[in-house]
Amino acid sequence: MASGEFERIARIRSAAARRRPGIVLGIGDDAALLAPRPGFDTAISTDLFVENVHFRREWTTSRQLGAKAVAVAVSDMAAIGAQPAAVLLSLAIPADIGDADLDGFLAGASSEADRWNASIVGGDLSRSPDGLVVDVVLVGHVEEGRALRRSGAIASDDLYVSGVLGTSAAGLQALRASGEDTVDDAERDVLIRAHLAPEPRVALGRALVTRDLARCAIDVSDGLSSDLRHLCDESDVGASIVAELLPAPAGIAYALHGGEQYELLFAAPVHHRADIDALAGELGLPLTRIGRFEGPAHDVWLETGGELTRLEPGGFDHFADR
Amino acid sequence: MASGEFERIARIRSAAARRRPGIVLGIGDDAALLAPRPGFDTAISTDLFVENVHFRREWTTSRQLGAKAVAVAVSDMAAIGAQPAAVLLSLAIPADIGDADLDGFLAGASSEADRWNASIVGGDLSRSPDGLVVDVVLVGHVEEGRALRRSGAIASDDLYVSGVLGTSAAGLQALRASGEDTVDDAERDVLIRAHLAPEPRVALGRALVTRDLARCAIDVSDGLSSDLRHLCDESDVGASIVAELLPAPAGIAYALHGGEQYELLFAAPVHHRADIDALAGELGLPLTRIGRFEGPAHDVWLETGGELTRLEPGGFDHFADR
Repeated sequence: MASGEFERIARIRSAAARRRPGIVLGIGDDAALLAPRPGFDTAISTDLFVENVHFRREWTTSRQLGAKAVAVAVSDMAAIGAQPAAVLLSLAIPADIGDADLDGFLAGASSEADRWNASIVGGDLSRSPDGLVVDVVLVGHVEEGRALRRSGAIASDDLYVSGVLGTSAAGLQALRASGEDTVDDAERDVLIRAHLAPEPRVALGRALVTRDLARCAIDVSDGLSSDLRHLCDESDVGASIVAELLPAPAGIAYALHGGEQYELLFAAPVHHRADIDALAGELGLPLTRIGRFEGPAHDVWLETGGELTRLEPGGFDHFADR
Repeated sequence: MASGEFERIARIRSAAARRRPGIVLGIGDDAALLAPRPGFDTAISTDLFVENVHFRREWTTSRQLGAKAVAVAVSDMAAIGAQPAAVLLSLAIPADIGDADLDGFLAGASSEADRWNASIVGGDLSRSPDGLVVDVVLVGHVEEGRALRRSGAIASDDLYVSGVLGTSAAGLQALRASGEDTVDDAERDVLIRAHLAPEPRVALGRALVTRDLARCAIDVSDGLSSDLRHLCDESDVGASIVAELLPAPAGIAYALHGGEQYELLFAAPVHHRADIDALAGELGLPLTRIGRFEGPAHDVWLETGGELTRLEPGGFDHFADR
């Protein structure tokens, strides 16, 4: 039998007992309280994580699920260049999720929050008549006026991406095709891990802000073709990328359109190339120049073997297939 | 046919176009940005609003639904004494909710946010395989160190409640019994309105903070018997209330245990009685002294016709009836 709501809240409180400087009041009141941080803007984002839309329970442990829900939300802080500070977790919980699953989920969420020096300070609980629905709220801090917005790229800026592209989408495909074994086990494990345990690029986002290296950034959640379009639309420029330059271990189609990768895509002035190479070395994270921004139009072009084709957004749209 | 995700986001952006001082960056980026407010703590809360748990679509218009989702979340700010500043809306939307319903929901949410001088600055959208799930995040500001926590009541403090109790639960019952017509239409409409369009007590919460009148507060979301227990547990005191003093137009059972009322329940030192009466006059809102805090135990007592009985929590528990 599942425990009552107040016992559940008590369990979450104990998972969230670790408080950090700046947290005035955590779980257990009508709201959480954070101390003011003069000189810093407060960044806030929310991320929904819906059963059978964003995840399937049969593919993952509860612990992985909790960690991924928080990691994906932390990625928004990375993309805007903020240091995560606090997490709120809203959970609509179906009847077939018992205490052990909830404990696992909270352990995963809590340990992922800890990795980024953030505390779970609040949230809400409800039963759900159907699947599990999670909404993760992230609060962070970024030096006043210096957040990495989506607007800000100018024509002639270099376009960079961190890490590799397409492995998460390929991992999702491997999970869907489970049993068919089209790739070898070690490769399959790497891809599935990229899908189930994405790595938000907080250190990169923070360095881009504090060293003033980038003019704009976004995380690759919808897919390169869609997210690059967002940058172009918001910055009012066009862009071109070179297929041969993409870090695409799972192939070009996954790299162009695969979502849920959570690498950072960012614009930087040409004169920062050496500093960005140095940063990649320091972080131990590839930062690959894959193209540039150009022209006033919002068009995105793909150069393959010297030929230019228009790149249409091909990422995941929650409402496209209705 | 429902429109695509980016069109939906565009629609939300236009509903949220009104920005206020302190909002650095609203909808359309990886996170919203709020300017620092020295001297104020930042209050943050989330409220889930789940179809067939918190609401039924057949009982309400989309506009009422959007307004109530935000009002309930604003009530957490009132309860902690904060001035609302920003709202984030996460919506998991089922296939049978089309553009007109979404527009109605957003119009209601947006107009309720406007009432409290708050801006919709962000959120998330997903499809939902089943019902509508809404998570509303509220961000507000309260003078540093002066929030109305749940802890803080001491033995001998007066216990007050604003407005009336039990009408929302009676309204819910009237909706459930629709067609049976046990009460007259005008009375029924008042009760149903109390359920569908609750009034968060922001002005009261702010006045209790700025005039330093209350030692602790909570909003009546679970029901008086449960929420008073929360105050006693967090403050480490007991309490007794007097049945004859309760503002209970729908009857004593609804007043004791009916949830979703969103009035404030607060503790105040005895020497503030005149100031609290004056505040009630200024606000045009009854502030009724219904009992007092006493003793170190966490027991809650109900006095009826001079007889004391123990009052057990009888509010709504999302997980109790599993």
